[in-house]
This record gives sequence, structure tokens and C-alpha cells, in this order.
Amino acid sequence: MKHYLSLKDIDSLPDWVSEARQLKEKPTAYKNLGSGKILCLLFFNNSLRTRLSTQKAAMNLGMDVMVMNFGSEGWQLEFEDGKVMDQGKSEHIKEAAQVVSQYCDIVAIRAFAGLKDKLTDEAEMVLNGFKKYASVPVVNMESSVGHPLQALADAITLAEQNSKPRPKIVLSWAPHPKALPHAVANSFVAMMRLQDAEFVITHPIGYELNPELTKGIPLEYDQERALENADFVYVKNWSSYTDYGKVLHQDPDWMMTSKKLGKAKFMHCLPVRRNVVVADAVLDGGQSLVIEQANNRTYAVQVVLKKILEGSNQK
Amino acid sequence: MKHYLSLKDIDSLPDWVSEARQLKEKPTAYKNLGSGKILCLLFFNNSLRTRLSTQKAAMNLGMDVMVMNFGSEGWQLEFEDGKVMDQGKSEHIKEAAQVVSQYCDIVAIRAFAGLKDKLTDEAEMVLNGFKKYASVPVVNMESSVGHPLQALADAITLAEQNSKPRPKIVLSWAPHPKALPHAVANSFVAMMRLQDAEFVITHPIGYELNPELTKGIPLEYDQERALENADFVYVKNWSSYTDYGKVLHQDPDWMMTSKKLGKAKFMHCLPVRRNVVVADAVLDGGQSLVIEQANNRTYAVQVVLKKILEGSNQK
Amino acid sequence: MKHYLSLKDIDSLPDWVSEARQLKEKPTAYKNLGSGKILCLLFFNNSLRTRLSTQKAAMNLGMDVMVMNFGSEGWQLEFEDGKVMDQGKSEHIKEAAQVVSQYCDIVAIRAFAGLKDKLTDEAEMVLNGFKKYASVPVVNMESSVGHPLQALADAITLAEQNSKPRPKIVLSWAPHPKALPHAVANSFVAMMRLQDAEFVITHPIGYELNPELTKGIPLEYDQERALENADFVYVKNWSSYTDYGKVLHQDPDWMMTSKKLGKAKFMHCLPVRRNVVVADAVLDGGQSLVIEQANNRTYAVQVVLKKILEGSNQK
Repeated sequence: MKHYLSLKDIDSLPDWVSEARQLKEKPTAYKNLGSGKILCLLFFNNSLRTRLSTQKAAMNLGMDVMVMNFGSEGWQLEFEDGKVMDQGKSEHIKEAAQVVSQYCDIVAIRAFAGLKDKLTDEAEMVLNGFKKYASVPVVNMESSVGHPLQALADAITLAEQNSKPRPKIVLSWAPHPKALPHAVANSFVAMMRLQDAEFVITHPIGYELNPELTKGIPLEYDQERALENADFVYVKNWSSYTDYGKVLHQDPDWMMTSKKLGKAKFMHCLPVRRNVVVADAVLDGGQSLVIEQANNRTYAVQVVLKKILEGSNQK
Repeated sequence: MKHYLSLKDIDSLPDWVSEARQLKEKPTAYKNLGSGKILCLLFFNNSLRTRLSTQKAAMNLGMDVMVMNFGSEGWQLEFEDGKVMDQGKSEHIKEAAQVVSQYCDIVAIRAFAGLKDKLTDEAEMVLNGFKKYASVPVVNMESSVGHPLQALADAITLAEQNSKPRPKIVLSWAPHPKALPHAVANSFVAMMRLQDAEFVITHPIGYELNPELTKGIPLEYDQERALENADFVYVKNWSSYTDYGKVLHQDPDWMMTSKKLGKAKFMHCLPVRRNVVVADAVLDGGQSLVIEQANNRTYAVQVVLKKILEGSNQK
Repeated sequence: MKHYLSLKDIDSLPDWVSEARQLKEKPTAYKNLGSGKILCLLFFNNSLRTRLSTQKAAMNLGMDVMVMNFGSEGWQLEFEDGKVMDQGKSEHIKEAAQVVSQYCDIVAIRAFAGLKDKLTDEAEMVLNGFKKYASVPVVNMESSVGHPLQALADAITLAEQNSKPRPKIVLSWAPHPKALPHAVANSFVAMMRLQDAEFVITHPIGYELNPELTKGIPLEYDQERALENADFVYVKNWSSYTDYGKVLHQDPDWMMTSKKLGKAKFMHCLPVRRNVVVADAVLDGGQSLVIEQANNRTYAVQVVLKKILEGSNQK
């Protein structure tokens, strides 16, 4: 029984990246591996890249796919143990997870942070509910606190683009009109711990990520200084973690520009708000890797599915 | 032209149950039977088990599947003959059913009771509209008055679990905060008529099911007495039929508990509200069959699809 | 790089119609052509016929299909260049189109006219955005100003039903309670330019279509005179083009009746409002072709997909 819930489920990042790059060369080389197997995608939130790239990866492996928007097409789930379910929720995660497991061979789940309550989000109720009660492997398609498929795709992109033994990589906060989750930033940080790189995080005061995740990683509040001689700049907005889920400010000075970027390559997970998070000139210029990052989403999830199908993603 | 609209479309329940159990042993034994055939699922209401188990069953038979949420993705349907369609409804069932038939080989439909008007619900406009105008076989994925796929799955579960020549089986009403349809209870009753069993229905006064369906079946208003020496207890809420669609009371005394259940096996179609319909201890204990009932949904619909594909489900 | 965006992308209508009719005879004759290829359907608006017939056509060609309701399942798109995206829209068409292209081999798009602003609708932002930025062929599943798959299906139906060297074909406006787009009428007119027929358009004053599209085509405000000796009558509502998107009147005298129809065949793209657009007697009588038109939707889109897959739909 092997899940892909976080970066911790990767036994060797270099090996996985290498295998993903081989799949990218020959996407249908393992067309028989998934034959007769069903992947079920359960979306509790919207999705474009994850929705389509995961279907494509499964098809590349010969799997059948079922897609369900859980909230609008199914029933509201209860997660609390011992609850008297006399309100709006019709089904408990205990039944839902056991039942869905019987209709598929792998279940993949997207359930974003609500950003109302830190403890609730960190409990990862949907993902952990499926992990606990499902009888088939569970894949995280972005949960409250992590987006490990994105981070794996980013690792592939870095491997393809980097030519230095120890590149400088900067994670730079950007402004955004809405409060966004920390999942992408968290998983990028976790992935960077598995890289040989000079890694720096930069953001305004008040936007510190969960200190348990960033412990020991250099933090630089001065964006300009952080970006000096960077080889790769990963830009992302997130809401405050300390003042949980709040938008503390939207200072346009933090937007990424060609000038700030210098000679570095630009990365972002998409969707991205042009001229708020990053200037048009960066996205439309030759240093942006965002389209290739999205392309690598297919091969990131394909290597995960392949390893689950092979029953070989032991830690 | 053979439909699966109600239990009446089963020529021999023991034969169908036996064939379903063989499919459960070898789900892909007839992988070529549905090759090149398309099943179209049309949902006028939400669904989890039916949505996924029906897709899986079709895939097991090698069919292609198209899923459509009719209300949100298509057009509002008119059912009345001779209507001047100058209000909200854009398409008549006459066209919709004929058209959809041309894009698939079997069409499966879910359309719940509205519980506003008994005559409207009993007219089964959606299901009967498709039956009348479709040129391909129609499968009932729960209509206003019946859920024959659930009842067939329940018959499979009973066959697997029962060891007595004539078990005692009780259908016991349970409280629920919302008004629910009668479809599951109706089809369970119809299925019990095809079983060799001592069958008793129990519910509070005012919750009598359609007397045409329950004629001759023992009714016991005293739940405790009804449950004496039961081998299987099928628990389900439904709203009042006489005072149509009303919630007359929500007496928690009618909730199923371990004490009441005794040595009987517990059955429910799911989704179920814990600690309202049934106590946690029952669902989490060894006498609950609900997860296996859900599992058998796949093989119930698979035997239906197989028989339609074989053109052999004559009465 | 070959798209199907409008009738202009057809090099020879007679050849395409002939090929579609061959596909109708043997739908799965090219089952291997699409093997390992993915068609992605993106719906910005509701759909029944297009949704199902396009999936069926793709399956007939052996393609895998991914369906996405862009608005409700994905992110709101921005189309304007240089925009500061600090409002409701999360992703720019530039990224969306490039990204989606990487997950499929053909992308098909439905995006209706908004009918608020003529210039905006005529800019065809969604369709042209994908045309400009996608790296795979784009198929128009009805855009602001055209519905070329419908027109191709109509050409197939005419070819099947017509026995005269030069039939009289009338496009007749009909009343409708809502403001509808011009797309179907526009593409029908464009298709008629490729036919050897006596073609007349009839509608009340104020409902003139875009004069650039109808230039040189006889217009007759007197419906009765227009219908004289017609062989085929194509009925359709559209809102005013001059007083853009407005419903100027809903005169029931313009509804098509058996008396008006005479000996002509009746055509409509569906969905159709009975007894508003056309009388029951016409739809239920032997002269209606609407069900066959819908059937031909499958073979229209199948010939388009086949030509794209063969890389042979050059002008």
C-alpha cells in the first residue's frame, strides 16, 4: 500500500526525475502497465493543469480514468469522528473513502486549504481521511499544505534547465489580490531540501512560511539582495501564515520584473496574474520556464502513477 | 429493445444474482462484449456510488463511457405534450431522447423525485420520457419511484451473506433531517417479493409506503417487536407518502443501534448520516454490510449491461 | 497546423460531405487513426449535441477524450493584452492555450456570444485566443459568430435528402423568448454559398444578419412569399444584429406551421422550443429532418477530426 501524499514519499528525487525524463522521451513506453486499471480523480476544488495532465499521464500508461467534482456532483462530506450528522453533510469520509476505493485502483484527490483556520487546514482532513480509510493508493493533487506533484514537476524542470553544480535558487513572494494557500510554496521548499543548491527565500515581513518547514533556510527580507546572481527565481504569492490566511499588503514593488530577474530563469506554477505577480515582459521573454513547468506536470504524475502501479515506490 | 427500468425487468432474480457473482469473480471476463459500444450516463441529480460503479462496470465490459450532468451542462427539459415552450425550458424530451439515442448504445438515467407532487413524481416523466422516445435501451440509475440497481446489488449481498433457507429480513425506517424519496425502499420491497424470506416492514405511523407496493407484506409499528430474531435489518429513511414528501417527525428513538440490531446484519444503501440514521457502533462493527453492498453495485449494473449487450434480458 | 474554425477551412464541401457519408456507413473504419491521440473538449457554455456527438466521433476514430467545463471547473480567463490582472480573472489566454496544447493533440472549444457588445463578440476572443496561442489544431464547437460543425452536418443532411439539381432553400427567422446568438444562421449562410441552390432569407424588418455575410443573397420580408415552392426550410431564431442582441418582437405569426411549410422539409439545429419556434405538427410529422441533422453531427465532426489527424485539411 503506497501513497504519494508529500515529498517524503519520494525515495530518491534524482532517480524519479531521471525516470520522468525518460517517460517524457517515450510517453507510451509503458502503455500496458495500466491496462485494466482505473484512476479516479476527485476534485474538491477547481483545476486546469492537474485535471488534464493527470488524465493524460494515466492514458499514457493505458489506464482508464474517472473524473468527479466531488462537491457539485456528489455529497457533502463529514470528517469528524462521533458526529451527529443532522446538518448539511450527508456522508462520512469513512464510508466515502472505503466505497470509492472499491471502484478504482488509485484515487487522486484535490482539496485546498480553506484559510479560515490553521489547525483545520493542517489536519488535512480530506487527504488524511482518504489515506486512513481508502484501501487503494492515494495521490495528492494539492492538499491544504502541499502540492507535491507540482514540486516534482519543478524538480524535472530544474534538472532540464540547470547546468551548474550548485545553482542559486530564490523563492520570491509576489503580491496578489486574493488570499492564496501555502501549498505550492511549502512543497517547493521541501523539494529544495533534496537539491544541491544555494536556496534563499524572500518575502515581506509577516509572510514567513511555517517555521517548521523553513528551519535553517536563509531568509532575506530585501528582495533585491536575495535576487543577486540568482540562476532560477520561483515566484509565488501566499497569504500570511502567522496572521493566518490574511492579505497583509499587496505592495506592487514585489512584482517580478525583467530588471529584477536579471539573467535568472523565471518559474511559476500557474495560473499567474500578469502584471500583478509578474510583468508581461518576463512571461513573454525567453527566460520564462512556466510553459515547460506545466508540460512537466504530465511526466511528474506519470512517474508517480507508474511507481504505484509497479508497487515499487517504497521509501 | 430491452430496458432495465424496474425489478419487473428481471426474468429470474436467482439467475441474475448468480451471474453477477460470477462477474465479481472475473470482472473482465467479457471485456470484448462491449467493445465499440458507448454507454451514456445522464445525471439530473447528484451521485457518487452510481456514477463511479456504473463507469467501472462499463469499463469492465470494454465499453466507452460518456458522462453528462444534464441540468448544469445541457438544457432544461420540457415533458408536457402540446406545451407552448415560451418559459425557461429550452428542449423537449421528445427531441432530447431521440437525439441522445443516436450518440450511444445504452443510456442510463438518474432523476430523483421532487417530493412536491405525488402525481408528478409517479408519472416518472424523465425515465418514461426516455423509455418512450429513446431508440436504445434505457437503464434506471434511480428514478422518482425506484432504484432497481440498488435492489439488485442488495439481492447479491443477501445471497452472499445469508445461510438460512428462509431468513428474517426487516426494513426499518430511520429518522433524517431532510425529506427523502421512497425509491430505495420501494425497490427493496419489490426485490423482497422475489426472495424466500420472512419479510417485515416497520416505521412510525404516517410513514406507510405506497399501499399498492406493500400489499400483503406484514407491517409492524413497534420497531422492537419487528426486529426480534431478525437476520438482516435494512435501514432507510423516507418521507411521508400519505402526507406526500413531508417530514412528520425525526424521533431519534428510531435510530438503529447495536442493541436493537442484536445478531442481525446491518444494511443501508449509503450515503448514511451517522448517529442520526444509525449509531457509529453499528457501522464500525462487524455486522455492517454497507461497504460490501456498495461494492456489489458494480456487479449489479454489470450484469444489467451485459444482458442488454447480449440482447438477452427478456422477461 | 490546420484548424477548423469556420466554413473557410473546408477545401471542397462536396468532398467532405461525401467522406462524412462514408464514415456514417462505416463509423469505425479508421479506428486506428486516432489511437494514442487525445482530444480535449473545452466548454465555456452548455452543450448537449456537440458534447456527446464530438465524444462519439473521437471514440469512433480511436481517440481518447478529456472533457472540461472551463468556467466552473477551471479558472476565469483574461484575454486583453497588457492587462493588470488584479480583478476576478486568474489566468491569461496566453498561458491557458499554450498549456492545454501540451496535454492534447486537438483542442475543441465552445464559447458563445455574450450579445452585450458587437465588437467584443466579433473579436472571437476565446476562439482566436486559442488559435493564436495553441500549438495544436483548434476546432470550433460554436463560437460567437459561427457554428461550422452544425453547418457541415446540415450540408450532409441536405445531400442525403435532396434530389433536385437546384433546390429552393429558405432560411426563416422564428420567434423566441430569449435573445439568441447569430452563429448558427451565419454558418448556414456561409455553407449555402457553397451549394448549388436557390437560397432566400426571410425575417421581420430589424433582424437583418451581418450584411457582410449576406451580401448578394435574396432577402424577402414577406415570409409567405419566401416560402413559396420551398424544398427545404431552415428555421432559426436570432436576436437583432443592428440593435445588437435585442429581442425586437416575438410575433407568433412567424412560427413555422405545417400550412406554411407546404411540401418542404423542415430543418432546425436544436434545441428547439415547440409551439414557439415551430408547431408540434411539423416536428412530429414526416417532413422534419431535425433528428437526422443531429445524427449527422457525429459524422460532421468525425470528418473534421479525421482530416486533422491525417494532416490533410489544407485549403
